[in-house]
Amino acid sequence: MRWKQTFIPTVKEDPQDAEAVSHKLMVRAGLIRRLSSGAYTYLPLGRKILRKAEAIVREEMNLAGAVELLMPALHPAELWKKTGRYDDMGEVMIKFTDRHGREITLGPTHEEIVTDLVSREIRSYKDLPVTLYQVQTKFRDELRPRFGIVRSCEFLMKDAYSFDADQEGMEISYKKMYDAYRRIFERCGLPYLIVEADPGLMGGTVSHEFMIPCEIGEDRIVTCASCGYAASTEVAEAKGEAGSSFGKPEAKEKEIVSTPGKSAVHDVCAFLKSSPEKLIKTLIYIADDVPVAVLIRGDHQANEAKIKKALKVRGLELADGKKVEEITGSGIGYSGPIGLDIKIIADNAVRNMVNAVCGANEKDKHILNVNPAIDFQPGLWADIRVITESDPCPRCGEKIEMKSAVEIGHTFKLGTKYSSVLGASYADDKGAMNPLVMGCYGIGVNRILASLIETSHDKDGIIWPASLSPAEVVVIPVKMDDEEVFGTAEKIYDELSGAGIDVIIDDRDRSVGIKFKDADLIGFPVQVVIGKKSLAEKKVEVITRRGKASDLVDRNDFIDKIKSILQ
Amino acid sequence: MRWKQTFIPTVKEDPQDAEAVSHKLMVRAGLIRRLSSGAYTYLPLGRKILRKAEAIVREEMNLAGAVELLMPALHPAELWKKTGRYDDMGEVMIKFTDRHGREITLGPTHEEIVTDLVSREIRSYKDLPVTLYQVQTKFRDELRPRFGIVRSCEFLMKDAYSFDADQEGMEISYKKMYDAYRRIFERCGLPYLIVEADPGLMGGTVSHEFMIPCEIGEDRIVTCASCGYAASTEVAEAKGEAGSSFGKPEAKEKEIVSTPGKSAVHDVCAFLKSSPEKLIKTLIYIADDVPVAVLIRGDHQANEAKIKKALKVRGLELADGKKVEEITGSGIGYSGPIGLDIKIIADNAVRNMVNAVCGANEKDKHILNVNPAIDFQPGLWADIRVITESDPCPRCGEKIEMKSAVEIGHTFKLGTKYSSVLGASYADDKGAMNPLVMGCYGIGVNRILASLIETSHDKDGIIWPASLSPAEVVVIPVKMDDEEVFGTAEKIYDELSGAGIDVIIDDRDRSVGIKFKDADLIGFPVQVVIGKKSLAEKKVEVITRRGKASDLVDRNDFIDKIKSILQ
Repeated sequence: MRWKQTFIPTVKEDPQDAEAVSHKLMVRAGLIRRLSSGAYTYLPLGRKILRKAEAIVREEMNLAGAVELLMPALHPAELWKKTGRYDDMGEVMIKFTDRHGREITLGPTHEEIVTDLVSREIRSYKDLPVTLYQVQTKFRDELRPRFGIVRSCEFLMKDAYSFDADQEGMEISYKKMYDAYRRIFERCGLPYLIVEADPGLMGGTVSHEFMIPCEIGEDRIVTCASCGYAASTEVAEAKGEAGSSFGKPEAKEKEIVSTPGKSAVHDVCAFLKSSPEKLIKTLIYIADDVPVAVLIRGDHQANEAKIKKALKVRGLELADGKKVEEITGSGIGYSGPIGLDIKIIADNAVRNMVNAVCGANEKDKHILNVNPAIDFQPGLWADIRVITESDPCPRCGEKIEMKSAVEIGHTFKLGTKYSSVLGASYADDKGAMNPLVMGCYGIGVNRILASLIETSHDKDGIIWPASLSPAEVVVIPVKMDDEEVFGTAEKIYDELSGAGIDVIIDDRDRSVGIKFKDADLIGFPVQVVIGKKSLAEKKVEVITRRGKASDLVDRNDFIDKIKSILQ
Repeated sequence: MRWKQTFIPTVKEDPQDAEAVSHKLMVRAGLIRRLSSGAYTYLPLGRKILRKAEAIVREEMNLAGAVELLMPALHPAELWKKTGRYDDMGEVMIKFTDRHGREITLGPTHEEIVTDLVSREIRSYKDLPVTLYQVQTKFRDELRPRFGIVRSCEFLMKDAYSFDADQEGMEISYKKMYDAYRRIFERCGLPYLIVEADPGLMGGTVSHEFMIPCEIGEDRIVTCASCGYAASTEVAEAKGEAGSSFGKPEAKEKEIVSTPGKSAVHDVCAFLKSSPEKLIKTLIYIADDVPVAVLIRGDHQANEAKIKKALKVRGLELADGKKVEEITGSGIGYSGPIGLDIKIIADNAVRNMVNAVCGANEKDKHILNVNPAIDFQPGLWADIRVITESDPCPRCGEKIEMKSAVEIGHTFKLGTKYSSVLGASYADDKGAMNPLVMGCYGIGVNRILASLIETSHDKDGIIWPASLSPAEVVVIPVKMDDEEVFGTAEKIYDELSGAGIDVIIDDRDRSVGIKFKDADLIGFPVQVVIGKKSLAEKKVEVITRRGKASDLVDRNDFIDKIKSILQ
């Protein structure tokens, strides 16, 4: 690769629209450019890194026995309607009507499509197991595209789908993908964590997220240093009751008090000289069209994934002001469980609250000294809140830590959710028809780049592992007008290429200062510097990007040195 | 590659919806499946062939000095509006509005996007020349998707764009791409022709199409065996006047005759006992909103590309019945040049017509003995018809041939059409700003597959060249339950893999008849058959797919034999 020919527009200043380090560095290093909100062009170096990530993904998929295909991005809407996800996906799914009046969606994922395909082609247990994958562009109309390529409307995804005869088979296929994912992220040099997660819209029971802890993470995860437990906050069981059982004083007499204009937890507490852990928040949700009151301690956060699971519903939405008034008789902020004739579900942490505060279902009124089981009886007690840092580890009881993380992979045990609806079944050895048991497995290929940068950079720029770097080595001639220097640089470039090393020569007629700055910014793992002084000693300078260690190496012996750094 | 694991659903019967041989064979060989009109899934073997084609394209692009990037498919409509192509593209461009109310188009090509990118990044003549390319999915809402992947709504395109300081530079960049295209199609084993073509909507002056002559071709091309001339019928100059100057008899007196209900050329001629070459067809077009009468000899076909060029207009559409009546006073079929007060353009072949027939601009009336220059005078004479097989070669005057062909590549000398509108300019060595001079270059990667099959198959199936075949060799064990046979097949499979040959083993528990049929159908270049009888003689059977030559080869010496066939 030659620098001049390669179109590498590096930039000195951070782009104004960028919040994330990775976004800033990708623009500055000339890897990406924004076309419009959520749509990015990969410039030549960015494209090359993306292709290296794709290649690692493909190699490991193939090794794990998965087979590559390529499905369209244009999907007939009817397949999505069959599984109900046409509506469930909401506005994130791009929909339009073609010139023939057909409803088309732009694929945000491919469960419907691949299951429909397989339903027509797989007939017998002899055709199983099969795992199919593709590396393909997905489209999502994101509400808020963010962090450059991390949350964009168009992105490259590796999505795989396994089809097995039974649960046991699926577990084996799942394990193969799970292990392949570990190898992929290891080869990419990513400090990943695997967490138990909520399958959400995808369906199925068990899922694992592959997460990169970093500042820009939009997901929150829980980890335990003692036992190694790791989970997304969506599923981590909240077991702590600290602050709930405060000495069990006797239940006092209920009392309605006036709280004019105080509807937020914080305001109510300040006004009543109470504290959030003594207040019962009552949230009115619409769960599959039915109103439900959800009770959560004032200092806790409702966990919609857990609420859905506890209620066994598909749709869950907070009721708007009008609905809340219809149901409770008052506006948002004054709801309470007493006298409410809709289903009530309460978080476990509410159970031990004594003489608590809650809304009176009347504007500007709250009730003091409310006691669960005495003053109201929920239809269901469950763990429906988000775990907090003061909760114990759900597995070992020790202290947990909470982190932000970016999801780069997600594996799902889907079971028969799609195959039964779309009629994907096979004949077993007795001729009986059974639905295929599925798993699905996604990797956000673009996110590999961004999350690597988030976790591997310094003040000067990116630090790529050799496996992903746009070139393993950059050759920097110090003076372009010195025949010996430039000629030697060209020779060294050829020698490195000849040795199978991916190399770029900085053949620009620019100062060596700019060349060093750009090499550091882009983050090639090794810089080979050819200068007059070192050449006089028959040496070249070899700099390792990580740590900036510099070595004068024998002109005739530098390739081994470089190979050892690259490993 | 192992057959059982690879998901290769071959089919015995031709699919009902397929007209083209390539379409039928791609479905039968388990390469593709239709998802919906114009959208196809590439099954594992199809995906592999597509990836081999992509790899050849990339290698040759890189060798020619082009650099790969990746641009989004989601385009802001405003860029397309700037160049006017938002409207010009018409219904073929997919358009929708995102959740934020932004108008988005799905990229059918990328001139606007790449020029906008370059306009922000290239500043100086020192940054030039640059040629950028991508292998990316395009979207077009085709009126009539056809022939499987030949005309589909979603397809893989290699599109390249060159940027130069001046015309001379562009010619050099153009030549590099042109030569790379030749190498690509040669490596793919395609019998391509290069023809001069009409740039159409793309713009610019000169363009070349890379065509594969075959039955399903939707384009028509002209070739000359004598001088090697080749052109699309859209641009091939029609020089013949045969039948036009019939002895120059004296001009007779004009005469209006009644032709009740005779509006089609054929009917008028039959009724008047005349012949099409004695009739002047008068077509009313709307050219950039202005009506124009186009005169063509009755046996010739109007060429809209030539008419546009001659009139120097962008839009050209046949007027509807209502418009024709407004303009001529009569319905379609009775128009004529005499007494018409709109612009008239006449084809050169009309010039020498004597005592011809034309419409009278009155319902059910024609005029006999009409003579150009005497009875009417067109504003413009030009070559505006489609060349016919009786025309001479425009270059050498010899006999021409006409063929149908599929376009697999198209190169355009765009000039400054896009750069001037989108402000893509550079500072020359004196600091003056100049628009970039562009070329653009497209290859329909999917079409490589279909056109190869169209030109390389027999009654049993496809015949792939080694460069594109989903595997170079298929190993066929004759009996699966014979340990020696199957064990040797596995060994041979390993030996071939070890020798760097791309090989598949048919490890299915199926009859050898089915295995042969499928191997022939899919079209692997070489079949290695392991049977009990030949093994006893320490031999294996090596069959060449093309021609079905079979050879018994020494068990220990077969790899060289195979390598020589593959070359």
